[in-house]
Amino acid sequence: MTLHSSVYSSSDLLPALDGDLKTLNFLQEVVDILLAYIVESFDRSTKVIDFHYPNELLQRNNWELSDEPETLDDILISCRATLKYAIKTAHPRYFNQLSTGLDMVGLAADWLTSTANTNMFTYEVAPVFVLLEYVTLKKMREIIGWENGRGDGIFSPGGAISNMYAMLLARYKMFPEVKEKGMSSVPKLVAFTSEHSHFSIKKGAAALGIGTESVICIKADERGKMIPSDLERRIVEAKQKGYVPFFVSATAGTTVYGAFDPLIAISDICKKYGIWMHVDGAWGGSLLMSRKHRWKLNGVERANSMTWNPHKMMAVPLQCSALLVREEVSGLMQSCNQMHACYLFQQDKHYDLSYDTGDKALQCGRHVDIFKLWLMWRAKVWRVFTPQHTNVCFWYLPPGLRYVEDKVEKMKRLHKVAPTIKARMMEYGTTMVSYQPQGDKVNFFRMVISNPAATFEDIDFLIEEIERLGQDL
Amino acid sequence: MTLHSSVYSSSDLLPALDGDLKTLNFLQEVVDILLAYIVESFDRSTKVIDFHYPNELLQRNNWELSDEPETLDDILISCRATLKYAIKTAHPRYFNQLSTGLDMVGLAADWLTSTANTNMFTYEVAPVFVLLEYVTLKKMREIIGWENGRGDGIFSPGGAISNMYAMLLARYKMFPEVKEKGMSSVPKLVAFTSEHSHFSIKKGAAALGIGTESVICIKADERGKMIPSDLERRIVEAKQKGYVPFFVSATAGTTVYGAFDPLIAISDICKKYGIWMHVDGAWGGSLLMSRKHRWKLNGVERANSMTWNPHKMMAVPLQCSALLVREEVSGLMQSCNQMHACYLFQQDKHYDLSYDTGDKALQCGRHVDIFKLWLMWRAKVWRVFTPQHTNVCFWYLPPGLRYVEDKVEKMKRLHKVAPTIKARMMEYGTTMVSYQPQGDKVNFFRMVISNPAATFEDIDFLIEEIERLGQDL
Repeated sequence: MTLHSSVYSSSDLLPALDGDLKTLNFLQEVVDILLAYIVESFDRSTKVIDFHYPNELLQRNNWELSDEPETLDDILISCRATLKYAIKTAHPRYFNQLSTGLDMVGLAADWLTSTANTNMFTYEVAPVFVLLEYVTLKKMREIIGWENGRGDGIFSPGGAISNMYAMLLARYKMFPEVKEKGMSSVPKLVAFTSEHSHFSIKKGAAALGIGTESVICIKADERGKMIPSDLERRIVEAKQKGYVPFFVSATAGTTVYGAFDPLIAISDICKKYGIWMHVDGAWGGSLLMSRKHRWKLNGVERANSMTWNPHKMMAVPLQCSALLVREEVSGLMQSCNQMHACYLFQQDKHYDLSYDTGDKALQCGRHVDIFKLWLMWRAKVWRVFTPQHTNVCFWYLPPGLRYVEDKVEKMKRLHKVAPTIKARMMEYGTTMVSYQPQGDKVNFFRMVISNPAATFEDIDFLIEEIERLGQDL
Repeated sequence: MTLHSSVYSSSDLLPALDGDLKTLNFLQEVVDILLAYIVESFDRSTKVIDFHYPNELLQRNNWELSDEPETLDDILISCRATLKYAIKTAHPRYFNQLSTGLDMVGLAADWLTSTANTNMFTYEVAPVFVLLEYVTLKKMREIIGWENGRGDGIFSPGGAISNMYAMLLARYKMFPEVKEKGMSSVPKLVAFTSEHSHFSIKKGAAALGIGTESVICIKADERGKMIPSDLERRIVEAKQKGYVPFFVSATAGTTVYGAFDPLIAISDICKKYGIWMHVDGAWGGSLLMSRKHRWKLNGVERANSMTWNPHKMMAVPLQCSALLVREEVSGLMQSCNQMHACYLFQQDKHYDLSYDTGDKALQCGRHVDIFKLWLMWRAKVWRVFTPQHTNVCFWYLPPGLRYVEDKVEKMKRLHKVAPTIKARMMEYGTTMVSYQPQGDKVNFFRMVISNPAATFEDIDFLIEEIERLGQDL
């Protein structure tokens, strides 16, 4: 008799409690649906998206939660309907985000992770995954160039949180009393980052009680790189005002232009003024794996911390983001975040407690994000990774706009071209690419090439599709 | 010709770029391994854990990352090795955490989620999942008792982050200038929670720059419930000192005892003093689904926010945590966290932008955690969920300790009993249960019954196993 006999009163339909034949058949049926979806996703003759407006999509299918349980067959229908309206992010013509494509080894690893269904907080409940995180973080630190892979780190739910960790650590290192006494116990802190940096730096500052106004945006050159002389000028200016500069976030691979800030020059300035240097390599960090391109990150080995998202350029399934810390103060991350919960991190356990990594996290429970990266790493030769021009930003000038003389009128109309073409693209479902304005530049397409399935022909297709959809504008 | 032809130079071994037969066969082989693991996990004659100490486990297998790619066969071997040393969290005798068991519909849903491999930040790239989150959050708010399911919410990477969101919102609602100007612009804030509450409240306060000393711990009664009169006394005291009480976190289902704070009395106090009331129902929130037990959360409908983790009592695979907000100020979450990134949240898109939920998150990219909950909800009759005594804390008094007269000596020895038995339990691998001390109570076992596969016989087995392993102590 089961304790929860009444929990699953639909259990004649869905045993779900043991590995019986019916259960296994159900899982296999789901897998068959998924395998068919994968084949379809890579097929260029299929749509990237079967687009519907939100209200329409809400009505096209019954998505409601009722009190009546569905049968197994209904559940399979729900799975099919979900996939029908999902974006095919594996499609060779899907270019919409920095994370695109679907790696089969990564996918297999994620299926295994779901099946193991455990939590990263202690070695006790995730022995293998904790060790794989240990092995992988060490390897990543070696690749950065930190001596013997020394230091610390953690996999976090995305680059924004990794960046927030870095800011938290920088603050704690300078003013450890902030943990107990809060921001009212410390002087006014200021952080610096380029005007092209990711919005998560400001978001982190808002959350941590530092305030977005204390994030000083440094000028970037026309290619999107931070200008070191402007950084130093602003640091000096802040100090003159009595503020305490505590954090510089340089970007390795900006979101829009894909620019790499000059890390060596920035690190010299950070050293001179005693400021924590963080490198946000969420996008471009993976170039450390490339013999040909890693020079773009020269100087990263001088940073105090680095964000590196294998779920972007390395095509690991979502999510997989690492924060890596070159810890001069031993155990900084642990002492910054630990709360000594005695129900999890008992000090009288029988194994080496340094493997209970949970208390250095902001999270309590933490999803296993490591296995997909580790398994893909075993399967591939990352070092030969040689992307070029991953971010390409461009305008499409439709025939009707080409000879417009009035510049204001021309820019006003050009601003509407990308959104219009993008909307049409989604309605046709043939391809997807991103667009945006930047500073005084009106809307342009931001083409990011990180989909491993894409070929030159797919890029040609995109260009032709933009022309086809925009020729009347 | 592929753009990344050299990326996967091992691609003769692992095409991984399209849905060809070799790829599908590989995936099916992985699925076969996973299905066999599932059958084994539910088999009581297998071990819960094949335990090895960290250094030993590091040496038992080659986990290293080399520069040489593995073959497909090697990859399958790595999968098998990983599962061999993983904890069988689905095993009917695994009781170690609040999250236990493995639901087959939830697992299928997680496999689908991995295959769809997308990101929750915009409707554009996750139309179905964004709608399912919308539908499910609304349903959860209806169940809480908020009028017409009105309000806001988000799925976050775990209860600790959900609680942190609540604290962030409470602070922002009272002092919106904190977003730009930081904590130095506001008076000294204080938060209140019971001494039995989860450590994430203090962890959140540390991160947000509030400081752990500004979290005032309210006394709990002998059953672990917050004492409302002590809460009011401490609020008055704080106000007299010139501090500003801004946040009370009541707990619905404490981590150790499973106690429910008296929400109605607490809400009266919060209302009287104008304080944001949060309910941390990470563990006990799911009792709202039970007609018989939902009275334990009476008053939750008066709260401003609630954390509710379906990955705990509802057995949804990890991770699945919701923060729900009864938003009086419209768009509070959005205005608290938004940064208007123009590469993601373009305002000139062609669909209803209220479905682009990403800017209200602390994260940028956000994993799809909704589908497993939604699909399980469709498959089950949650409402008949009737757990009883989910947390049972007890000591085991070995024969040799029963007649020890010296109380100090007895407690000192009793303190070592649970860790010793737990260590032996793991070495035998027969079952797993948690232990801890609490206040002046020496180490006791904390038995949590949330594994749907467990029967009365499994509980009997645990008790007998504790006796067997502890009789010589």
